[in-house]
Amino acid sequence: MTSPIPGFWAVIPAGGSGTRLWPLSRRSAPKFLLDVTGSGQSLLRATWARLAPLAGDRMLVVTGAIHSEAVRLQLPMLSAESVVAEPTPRDSMPAIGLAAALVETRDPEAVVGSFAADHVIENEGAFREAIREAVVLARTGELVTIGIAPTGPATGFGYIRQGALLGAAGAEHARRVAEFVEKPDLATARRYLASGEYRWNAGMFVVKATTLLELLAMTHPDMVRVLREIAAAPERLAELWPALTAIAIDHAVAEPAAAAGRVAVVPADLGWDDVGDFRSIARFGDDRRGPPGLAVLGGGDDIVSVDSTGVAYAGSGRLVALVGLQDVVVIDTPDALLVTTREHCQDVRQVVARLAEQGRSDLL
Amino acid sequence: MTSPIPGFWAVIPAGGSGTRLWPLSRRSAPKFLLDVTGSGQSLLRATWARLAPLAGDRMLVVTGAIHSEAVRLQLPMLSAESVVAEPTPRDSMPAIGLAAALVETRDPEAVVGSFAADHVIENEGAFREAIREAVVLARTGELVTIGIAPTGPATGFGYIRQGALLGAAGAEHARRVAEFVEKPDLATARRYLASGEYRWNAGMFVVKATTLLELLAMTHPDMVRVLREIAAAPERLAELWPALTAIAIDHAVAEPAAAAGRVAVVPADLGWDDVGDFRSIARFGDDRRGPPGLAVLGGGDDIVSVDSTGVAYAGSGRLVALVGLQDVVVIDTPDALLVTTREHCQDVRQVVARLAEQGRSDLL
Repeated sequence: MTSPIPGFWAVIPAGGSGTRLWPLSRRSAPKFLLDVTGSGQSLLRATWARLAPLAGDRMLVVTGAIHSEAVRLQLPMLSAESVVAEPTPRDSMPAIGLAAALVETRDPEAVVGSFAADHVIENEGAFREAIREAVVLARTGELVTIGIAPTGPATGFGYIRQGALLGAAGAEHARRVAEFVEKPDLATARRYLASGEYRWNAGMFVVKATTLLELLAMTHPDMVRVLREIAAAPERLAELWPALTAIAIDHAVAEPAAAAGRVAVVPADLGWDDVGDFRSIARFGDDRRGPPGLAVLGGGDDIVSVDSTGVAYAGSGRLVALVGLQDVVVIDTPDALLVTTREHCQDVRQVVARLAEQGRSDLL
Repeated sequence: MTSPIPGFWAVIPAGGSGTRLWPLSRRSAPKFLLDVTGSGQSLLRATWARLAPLAGDRMLVVTGAIHSEAVRLQLPMLSAESVVAEPTPRDSMPAIGLAAALVETRDPEAVVGSFAADHVIENEGAFREAIREAVVLARTGELVTIGIAPTGPATGFGYIRQGALLGAAGAEHARRVAEFVEKPDLATARRYLASGEYRWNAGMFVVKATTLLELLAMTHPDMVRVLREIAAAPERLAELWPALTAIAIDHAVAEPAAAAGRVAVVPADLGWDDVGDFRSIARFGDDRRGPPGLAVLGGGDDIVSVDSTGVAYAGSGRLVALVGLQDVVVIDTPDALLVTTREHCQDVRQVVARLAEQGRSDLL
């Protein structure tokens, strides 16, 4: 079950600064480089550990140039060519497209799977099974996504509306994707859940490298040409990269391909979480070190809680005392303190925006 | 109006650790040594400044031995004998009683006024007028207290029930004290306010030194004997002090004297505040540096508030970011952080108790 899948390459786009996790997550130390769940390893390292059984050493991490050294330090088992440094941010399509072009030069039949560096998956067995089904379908020319079983009417994710079962051998659970839909409001999300037709879109794609580039060429032929030029002559990366359009893979490929009936979905119950904000992180906190209801993300010995619930992280060595607070979020770091509530933790990015306006780049 | 009152001595008991103001207030730096209101001077220094126009240099500060050096540093204008160091805490009666015994040796006709070192009085003119009336009455052998005009149904203070006007010359507003009553519950406090008969008891007493000791001798004759022994031979303080009973002046003298019809009250509208907890301190905060509703006690440049109200103090040099909080209290110091709400700020002492149990004397 855990031997690598022949011809399967794992691509890990490692980007995003995780502003909703400020002050834990910073520009210089974004979410994927951090152990925000207290698991003992960073999200990037956990992503590598999850994919290594499927891809072996056929792995590419695409990250910003300023983070490539940190990525190499966290993943010393990767070869030098396995870490691709983007000269400037261009969103997910150029990053994944370049990885596909690089893989294509080594194995024209290769299947690539793209998985964010900063998500959590608790059911690794279910993940591996879903990827194996997805690879089977990808070999037939499908663009395959993974449809996460929703655990609630989340409004922070896009959804996948599922169509008919494909009945493909080796991919018994796979269905046609009727459409990708944007992040819904709460009422719509509830309707999606009640219908049973919708799954969360975690942005995971499994597809032959050549298929991906072929689909991309239908909307962005110039981008495909440039990506293949770079793959053929990697020393030209810095020269050719800046001209690429910044666009997400969802808009550039997945949505048009779904409209054309070329996308399949493998449903899976993964225990997936994008750990996008402190409310999300809270469920990974350890409340055995504190009273019930207080999730401790770290520094539990430095926390005194009197009748308080929520999420706390004591990361500055100072004592953190909480008195009579409900659903509070207190994140204490050596140079910055955040106090908010679970309800408002999406608004944390407003602090980051305010600090940027004030020129406090030391705190970003 | 502001020339000192002949024969009037100001006594300032400077004690109490202010545990409800932790982590601003500590054992080593109690509330009276701090500028908790952002006025630019400590509460002790402000108390001195308020009393100097009335007492000149006839002033005694009675404080714990561990704070006597800090008191001398804050009040360098006082003579060495003006700061009396208690070897151990014995509550307010021995402290004020010793001051009275010391004053009695210098001037048997002296009137002493006792005023806590850690309260705020905004209407200093009204205070001076009230004390002048009180001194007139004290010279006739009355124990005189100041009755603060209540501004709300406070449950954190004792109350004074006023009786008939005394009609004394030079003390036209003074009344008999019918009784002192303990801190009421909210319903009782509302009833007190509605009746118009009650005033807050701020623990201010004006009385001839000999009268005070005479009243004390009715309940604690041994204590009076020992206090006079110490006053006659101050070098025996360390030897004689430990045997004194720890008791508050309210129980030892004021309540029995009121029952005997020997206590008068001068009503006054002082803008008085005991700044006992963060809810109380909040009204001294500066919300011009932040959005409306957020009282900034200090470090305003280090505070970023997004839709938050309450009280904030940034005293560690770190950034303090508040997002979507109502009536929050955030007190950030170099070694300890407190997060609570206005509603729960009386419970802050539970943190101090917890830290004491844990042996964290470094944080007390």
